Amino acid sequence: MSDPPLYYDRHVFCCTNLRPESDPRGCCAAKGSERLRDYMKARAKELGLARVRINTSGCLDRCALGPTMVIYPEGVWYGYKTREDLDEILQTHVIGGGRVARLMLHPADTGAPD
Amino acid sequence: MSDPPLYYDRHVFCCTNLRPESDPRGCCAAKGSERLRDYMKARAKELGLARVRINTSGCLDRCALGPTMVIYPEGVWYGYKTREDLDEILQTHVIGGGRVARLMLHPADTGAPD
Repeated sequence: MSDPPLYYDRHVFCCTNLRPESDPRGCCAAKGSERLRDYMKARAKELGLARVRINTSGCLDRCALGPTMVIYPEGVWYGYKTREDLDEILQTHVIGGGRVARLMLHPADTGAPD
Repeated sequence: MSDPPLYYDRHVFCCTNLRPESDPRGCCAAKGSERLRDYMKARAKELGLARVRINTSGCLDRCALGPTMVIYPEGVWYGYKTREDLDEILQTHVIGGGRVARLMLHPADTGAPD
């Protein structure tokens, strides 16, 4: 039995988890992730992107790299800081199917100093 | 350039969105999704599942079918009601790589009466 077709062609999960200030891991919410998620959601709507969903997510557990997002089904992760970062992810990846290499997270990335 | 390997082999997103009682769409939280998500998370931990993450998600926008989850990278959706449903999804899909046909959601499903 093959799986049904995808319900969303691109499903973006933006972490908006909030931790106490005392937590050494930090959290995406303390780094502005809620406002950035709002921006990305609004821009996706303005751009009329069908079959794309910009979703809020709980902790994705890569806190030191945050704000983080993961885009499925491809399973590509990004760390981002600004609206310009999100515009680039929307245009290049979500719309264009490319990758924003400068923002991509790799499995070994921990956010710890080298 | 090929994408990095997946960070999680299976990434499960459980909607825990809460809407006001007056909202005709209903919501997953009103149907017990938070406790069910807690159960699934705890069971995954007890089972020692590595490279699997049971994640909280905001509204997945298939509210009438809820509680809903989507499992990536395969993009398979389930509607579930009980701990037994979650045990079956964990054993059959997450661990076994199969599908729980009786709980799967299809793109055309709306939750509206036939």
